[in-house]
Amino acid sequence: MANSLKKFGEVFPILVEDLRSICAEQDNLPDQVWQWFEKTLQYNVVGGKCNRGLSVVDTTQILLGRDLTSEEYFQPATLGWMIELLQAMFLVLDDIMDGSVTRRGQPCWYRRADVDMMAVNDAPMLESAIYLLLKRHFRAHPAYLDLVETFHEVAFQIEVGQTYDMLTERGQVLHEFDEARYDAIVTYKTAYYSFYLPVALALHYTGRARPANLRQAKDVLVAMGRYFQVQDDHLDNFADPAVLGKVGTDIPDGKCSWLVVQALRLGTAEQRAVLKANYGRGGGGDAQGCERRVKDLYDELRLDGVYREYEERTVAELREKIAAVDESEGLRKGVFTAFLNKIYGRKK
Amino acid sequence: MANSLKKFGEVFPILVEDLRSICAEQDNLPDQVWQWFEKTLQYNVVGGKCNRGLSVVDTTQILLGRDLTSEEYFQPATLGWMIELLQAMFLVLDDIMDGSVTRRGQPCWYRRADVDMMAVNDAPMLESAIYLLLKRHFRAHPAYLDLVETFHEVAFQIEVGQTYDMLTERGQVLHEFDEARYDAIVTYKTAYYSFYLPVALALHYTGRARPANLRQAKDVLVAMGRYFQVQDDHLDNFADPAVLGKVGTDIPDGKCSWLVVQALRLGTAEQRAVLKANYGRGGGGDAQGCERRVKDLYDELRLDGVYREYEERTVAELREKIAAVDESEGLRKGVFTAFLNKIYGRKK
Repeated sequence: MANSLKKFGEVFPILVEDLRSICAEQDNLPDQVWQWFEKTLQYNVVGGKCNRGLSVVDTTQILLGRDLTSEEYFQPATLGWMIELLQAMFLVLDDIMDGSVTRRGQPCWYRRADVDMMAVNDAPMLESAIYLLLKRHFRAHPAYLDLVETFHEVAFQIEVGQTYDMLTERGQVLHEFDEARYDAIVTYKTAYYSFYLPVALALHYTGRARPANLRQAKDVLVAMGRYFQVQDDHLDNFADPAVLGKVGTDIPDGKCSWLVVQALRLGTAEQRAVLKANYGRGGGGDAQGCERRVKDLYDELRLDGVYREYEERTVAELREKIAAVDESEGLRKGVFTAFLNKIYGRKK
Repeated sequence: MANSLKKFGEVFPILVEDLRSICAEQDNLPDQVWQWFEKTLQYNVVGGKCNRGLSVVDTTQILLGRDLTSEEYFQPATLGWMIELLQAMFLVLDDIMDGSVTRRGQPCWYRRADVDMMAVNDAPMLESAIYLLLKRHFRAHPAYLDLVETFHEVAFQIEVGQTYDMLTERGQVLHEFDEARYDAIVTYKTAYYSFYLPVALALHYTGRARPANLRQAKDVLVAMGRYFQVQDDHLDNFADPAVLGKVGTDIPDGKCSWLVVQALRLGTAEQRAVLKANYGRGGGGDAQGCERRVKDLYDELRLDGVYREYEERTVAELREKIAAVDESEGLRKGVFTAFLNKIYGRKK
């Protein structure tokens, strides 16, 4: 059973308190700096759905096969909050790179007048919080070094994904939008940290991070992370904005979305010309007309149905992969089923 | 004797080659991303004086009391290049925060049209290179974890320094520019990574990082780092630009420089009013007049002489500290003398 956001949320103030005392232990660290750091933490780390963070707790529980005592809850929840810190760091940077205006219903951090380009230093500070907390809470854990290296590894993977995504967006060369490129962006930018990282941390934490277990986890979860992103791209165009909670902008933004990749793959030369003329024209004079023409083309090509087929096929493959998982070294199929149940058929 | 920049420079292409092969080992890491990463490395890491990086090699040699074999040279030089990587990361971010135009005689990375805000992702990528290389070359070293933690610690210290510097600059409240604030900014932003870090790495590398040795090193080197920054601030105003290689801009930029701290401390109420009216007015209509009036005030207050006294007193204190260093656990006074000789009386 999924752990509640409320209980998970109660751990964060404890970690902020830890960071406060770590700062107080440094030689003459100015109080003004701590106050700024705390403001950065509260503004950027709190307020999301915490799916990634909660997954560390859920996975730990499934691996151990029982409910966690309240003492046992704290450590995996702390690891979960470290994923939220990592994500916060990259969201701050992502918003700067994309020139975004709002995030989670409030101005992006760098858009605040009191922050501005200080945000580029606040982002690595959020990352530093991960290592300060790892040292504070896990230095005596047998997997301490593995936990540190896992964060290094995944941070680098996100950076690779961001680079590829930016280079692709800048290029805006539609004929380069193919499935291989799409897969690479999604895998590096999203799948590793959102799906593989929570399970890798729980495996290290529970002492079950055998190479075979990590390999199997990566295999299933990277595939699941891709499916998750395809869902996201599908919802961006086909979901009811009232249910989704936002209006999709992938078409005017010229994103390398799964839908445009399919449209390019399935369309005629004529239809590809329509895409070329109208995709990613959010800044132009006839932005709405351009978007409308792409949306119409998606309907003509029945991309909603193409997605439904993709989803059924992919979920069947994922279920097969999960059924084939070797549990002999302590991994549990239930870990993956729990992830799949959370995302299959989601409407937002 | 100091190791040559040429020999040190020859190590960098080997490390770039290592990073290339690390990237090639990742699942489907796009070649386009590697090419971008390589461009980022070449543009931002190479081209400085490498004082910090070279210090790791020099310190290792002094600690061991003999010349290094060419095999022994590679590892400390690699640690030295990691300091250069760390510095490159923070220079990229610093230039964005300060809105700088050039760095080392070429456009700042973020000012290039092909880079722009991608720079905010390139900076953490430069940091990731440190941990990738540490894992590649030091995983079997007994101090591997200490080396990793030392980089975490120092990165956080730089972030603290940047935050305090930015908050101070934004405030532009001259009466807050006092010696305590100046010391804290300089210690966190510069002294730890420029002076303490090279020696801490060499101590870990040579297996001499006893707590007492690290403590003594920090004590001497943080004091030396402050002296170095005071020199920098003095040179910014009093050096011949032809010798210095640049024209100082601390006065129009409103920096919390050692000179303005002294002027505020030594000046009358009237003279402080002159500072208040003219300091940090680089953007105003009478920018040159404002700068001239501050420069005249510095001369009136004989700050050049105040600096000379500061320098002689500080260097005497440093020599006392060095003479008192306990060498019984493998630390060597010569480590500190070498640093001091490099900076004492420098003209640029």
